[in-house]
Amino acid sequence: MRHSGGLVIGVDLGGTKMHAAAVDEHGTLLHDEREKTLPEEGADAVIGRIADLCRRITLRLNVPHVELGAVCVGVPGGVDDASGMVDKAPNLRWEKVPLGHLLSTALGGVRVFLDNDVRVAVTGEHAYGCGKGTRTMVGIFVGTGIGGGVIVDGRLHTGTRGVAGELGHMILKPKGPRCPCGNRGCAEALASRTSMERDVRALIAEGHESRVLKMLKKQGRMHLTSSVIAKALEKEDPVMTKVMRRAQHHIGVLVGNVANLLDPEVVVIGGGIAERMGEDFVARIRKVAYERMLVQRDRERVRILPTELKENAAPMGAAYIARQRLSASHPPPRTHTASA
Amino acid sequence: MRHSGGLVIGVDLGGTKMHAAAVDEHGTLLHDEREKTLPEEGADAVIGRIADLCRRITLRLNVPHVELGAVCVGVPGGVDDASGMVDKAPNLRWEKVPLGHLLSTALGGVRVFLDNDVRVAVTGEHAYGCGKGTRTMVGIFVGTGIGGGVIVDGRLHTGTRGVAGELGHMILKPKGPRCPCGNRGCAEALASRTSMERDVRALIAEGHESRVLKMLKKQGRMHLTSSVIAKALEKEDPVMTKVMRRAQHHIGVLVGNVANLLDPEVVVIGGGIAERMGEDFVARIRKVAYERMLVQRDRERVRILPTELKENAAPMGAAYIARQRLSASHPPPRTHTASA
Repeated sequence: MRHSGGLVIGVDLGGTKMHAAAVDEHGTLLHDEREKTLPEEGADAVIGRIADLCRRITLRLNVPHVELGAVCVGVPGGVDDASGMVDKAPNLRWEKVPLGHLLSTALGGVRVFLDNDVRVAVTGEHAYGCGKGTRTMVGIFVGTGIGGGVIVDGRLHTGTRGVAGELGHMILKPKGPRCPCGNRGCAEALASRTSMERDVRALIAEGHESRVLKMLKKQGRMHLTSSVIAKALEKEDPVMTKVMRRAQHHIGVLVGNVANLLDPEVVVIGGGIAERMGEDFVARIRKVAYERMLVQRDRERVRILPTELKENAAPMGAAYIARQRLSASHPPPRTHTASA
Repeated sequence: MRHSGGLVIGVDLGGTKMHAAAVDEHGTLLHDEREKTLPEEGADAVIGRIADLCRRITLRLNVPHVELGAVCVGVPGGVDDASGMVDKAPNLRWEKVPLGHLLSTALGGVRVFLDNDVRVAVTGEHAYGCGKGTRTMVGIFVGTGIGGGVIVDGRLHTGTRGVAGELGHMILKPKGPRCPCGNRGCAEALASRTSMERDVRALIAEGHESRVLKMLKKQGRMHLTSSVIAKALEKEDPVMTKVMRRAQHHIGVLVGNVANLLDPEVVVIGGGIAERMGEDFVARIRKVAYERMLVQRDRERVRILPTELKENAAPMGAAYIARQRLSASHPPPRTHTASA
């Protein structure tokens, strides 16, 4: 089996699990593999597991390892792609880890690129998902925090310092709850899964009836999960319903604000809740956002959609970036291509 | 006097006055002229005055009228450049006025382009002002309303429906005052000159001491002007000081939100107050915005500046657009160039 330009693999490196996928030049996911991250075992062990994941994919696809052209890893934190360094990734407890160099060595010299996990997911939805072919797209990912990314003129907008896309820290309520970033009333402090959990616990503490805490206990979970949220809503749990409506409202205002500024073709809502609930999550967000658009004419042309690729958005986006950067860097022909 | 590619004129068409400028290909303002708009006399009279303004400029510059290559008009409202139509301009009481066609006829067939007044001002600051040479720039214009525009990759971002840049309608305070757009707590409803006036009057009605109303009366003004704002602040009027601080705070939050999303090289604050007060207006906005940036590293690389071109931003930006569109449209050679 031959792959033009070599096989590429994209890796979504999360705090609890990692997920790698090989994607061909037409955007078809060839094969994917998952593994636990176990960051408590240290960076070397984690990087070893990423390398294993890549080898399992080439093995399964029956592609000689030498044909693996590049790997791109989406990291939950700040990265410097040029030096291959992860600056800081709190969920992994990493600081200044030379991931690019170490993973490349573990894979026998394969090119390794790094990017931020949210950016690779936004890139995935733009390259292969519901933003395919759009010129202007905004991705909003609602999870333990709220992250995002902006595509302008068909390309990821990185900004002057390379930190564009932080729409989770748009302040929507000046005297709102404190955000982990230190400010008050950021979108993340109002509508992330973490904020929903805080609000659920507060309402229960005030005496409101809810089965959410029992459901968490039953699943052996410490924190509110997308699965428990969805089930509690199905059962019409009054506290979960109220908290979800508020969160959807705030995300709707956020989407409206961004739409007024950028007038995008597509706003894609991703992250665990959107993956699980899809349109049930997005419908109310869309309604609130549309009501807040200054220009009402043709407002439906700004399409507000749930993630299409779901959990594949990040690894597929990382694979796309790997292919792009590989072809942009014009690598010297490798031995096997000469002898092919 | 010969002008490569012909002379171009940019016009800033406001509700009370119009201001036209000829700008050469190096960005030098050759000559400008002003006139009252007097929209109550009707569209034909207004368009006649724009044509007069253009003729006065060519006359003064001693350029044969036939060398006038193009005129671009910045209109306070929605335009369709392709058809040369002003869709709606409330300050002019215009609806469906074929400005492009009428002005071109009045000027003997000169090419006329249309754009929105805020966009031409943003373009002016980017082409010739404090955003010169930047890749990502945001313009925020604080006047009777709050308008704006976004430059990405060195070009004005227009959006899917052509309505991008409406950052005055970013909602910053969900239960804030009602905005003319119908929503609550938009930046415009919190920090425009109109909102400042509302807040000044409310505080005075509550019994707070202020000389602002007397100053307005003395100047024969119905509404709060930038000049009265600046003078009241100089005299440390307590009501004006309090209202201005609040407005600066809200604009600072707005700038912080946009900076977190786009990570621009420059945010330029324009409009009457910024023209008059400059750094005295912007310093506090900058402080609030910097405090709210998620990524504090190198935050000074996001430069937050008062308008450099001041009232010339719009006519110079319009002239720039005229030159750009003229060269993009590759017009057939005109008789005078063949005989030159």
